[in-house]
Amino acid sequence: MPSEFALIDAIARRAAARADVVLGIGDDAAILAMPEGRQLVVAMDTLNAGVHFPDDTAPADIGWKALAVNLSDLAAMGAQPAWCTLSLSLPDSDAGWVDGFLNGFLALAALHDVALVGGDTTRGPLSVCVTAHGFVAPDGALRRDGARVGDDVWVTGALGDAAAALVQWRSGGDRDPALRARLERPAPRVAAGLALAPLANAAIDVSDGLLADLGHICAASGVGAQVELDALPKSPALAAAFDHVRRRALQCSGGDDYELCFTAARRHREALLAIVGNGDLEMTRIGRIVPGSGVVAFDGDGNPWQPPQRGFDHFAG
Amino acid sequence: MPSEFALIDAIARRAAARADVVLGIGDDAAILAMPEGRQLVVAMDTLNAGVHFPDDTAPADIGWKALAVNLSDLAAMGAQPAWCTLSLSLPDSDAGWVDGFLNGFLALAALHDVALVGGDTTRGPLSVCVTAHGFVAPDGALRRDGARVGDDVWVTGALGDAAAALVQWRSGGDRDPALRARLERPAPRVAAGLALAPLANAAIDVSDGLLADLGHICAASGVGAQVELDALPKSPALAAAFDHVRRRALQCSGGDDYELCFTAARRHREALLAIVGNGDLEMTRIGRIVPGSGVVAFDGDGNPWQPPQRGFDHFAG
Repeated sequence: MPSEFALIDAIARRAAARADVVLGIGDDAAILAMPEGRQLVVAMDTLNAGVHFPDDTAPADIGWKALAVNLSDLAAMGAQPAWCTLSLSLPDSDAGWVDGFLNGFLALAALHDVALVGGDTTRGPLSVCVTAHGFVAPDGALRRDGARVGDDVWVTGALGDAAAALVQWRSGGDRDPALRARLERPAPRVAAGLALAPLANAAIDVSDGLLADLGHICAASGVGAQVELDALPKSPALAAAFDHVRRRALQCSGGDDYELCFTAARRHREALLAIVGNGDLEMTRIGRIVPGSGVVAFDGDGNPWQPPQRGFDHFAG
Repeated sequence: MPSEFALIDAIARRAAARADVVLGIGDDAAILAMPEGRQLVVAMDTLNAGVHFPDDTAPADIGWKALAVNLSDLAAMGAQPAWCTLSLSLPDSDAGWVDGFLNGFLALAALHDVALVGGDTTRGPLSVCVTAHGFVAPDGALRRDGARVGDDVWVTGALGDAAAALVQWRSGGDRDPALRARLERPAPRVAAGLALAPLANAAIDVSDGLLADLGHICAASGVGAQVELDALPKSPALAAAFDHVRRRALQCSGGDDYELCFTAARRHREALLAIVGNGDLEMTRIGRIVPGSGVVAFDGDGNPWQPPQRGFDHFAG
């Protein structure tokens, strides 16, 4: 069984380099050179076995997702990712498991030119804590508290896929591979966040569910929001696997999609649609910011609609 | 039972401010303003219940120690601490426990002007992951790889107290309060690290045990070290509670003291002793850096001596 030090060596050998990493894994701490004229953005999220992923999740998928949820937080700030640290708690020291984990973690890191620069490995119940670091221009970050009355509400990609995959997993039946990929290998919307930053007034990543997360924007900004249910983007896989009623609940409350929900002034509609034209990521206008507080969803007949379940809260279970 | 969001609100209300925190707890990530002309130093360490602290440890002591081990890493780099993030996994949402935890965590943060700027709370077995951020001047950090043949080896404070407290706890007998305080409320040697940075060639904090940690300096620097056992600093409490033989093992291999072990050229002896004269922290010269590899400890008769146990390795159990 490899020791903690051997494990750290194995991780260090696989970590990618970046010119701004003065000192990476192997000392008491990492030393990093900040670019001039930029502010530092720091996100930290933990995934625990049995809470944030099913126990039978492949190690590579756990690695991918542990970094993805953190890069998603940076994306929601409009930040350019740069570095991450990883704290891995393992019940036993399994070099094969760690190799698989790193396959997923480092594949996503490479996609976004993120260097793993430090952290630790310890004994304990399976838990993965990641801190992600990125950069923004001063006053250039997307925050939750900038939404203004009259803004459009937008969302990237499609909603409900990850929660749909979880429903399929819990029911023990067939699992659609496209939905499952969205649960196990979410794609943090980093490029979208960077493109949006000059245009949007507020943003959040959809981790708890659309209505809950848009509610966080409203609370921070002191406004309300109206959402048109028929406008919510859906993937072909979701449309095929779930009827209208169940799909709507998944889209509104499912969470774990790691799409970006953002608000922007009406005058930016064309500029935002031009971003869509330049890439392969859809952006859909789903509602508007209004005076007041809270989020109200309307069905196709213009009637208010309540989701059958609340946003996912780790302590509510 | 408070929700995750209520817990985060409770934590945010107690977090201290710093002028360079552009955006703290409550968004997808924190935004931080780096001082010009400084590099960023990042340390990350996790404490798991039953592995890194006894199960009956008071919440405030867990909070203190979780931050202390990270500030100790910054101290070993000669860095000025600034910000931290906290990821707290809890089996259930106990507001009283979190309050106690914060009492210890934030008391130590206040001592070092460290702002808690983000993180998350999740459900899971009790685990505390902290990332600490600090600053160094370019090329000003203390690293493990700078020791040179002919350097003196020094250590701050006294060695073996924390491990002695653990021995007393495991034996179920009387627990000396001075030793116990060293285990439960270690004092990160931040001021010492800052004062040493211009003088020392290499440094590490003593978390695994003196000989193991000095061995890390030797391996990184491509040198060997000789240590004089009779020179190792001991506290009055340790001398009173343990005989010569057991004390020596605790001083050499005990770990968890979070003192700094460092090397410096002989010409800096007077400057280093002047630092001691200015503060209340002792520094003791305990050996020298020699050609070769590995660490050899010598007893009072000049005979090599082997510790009866190895440095603490979380996976070696």
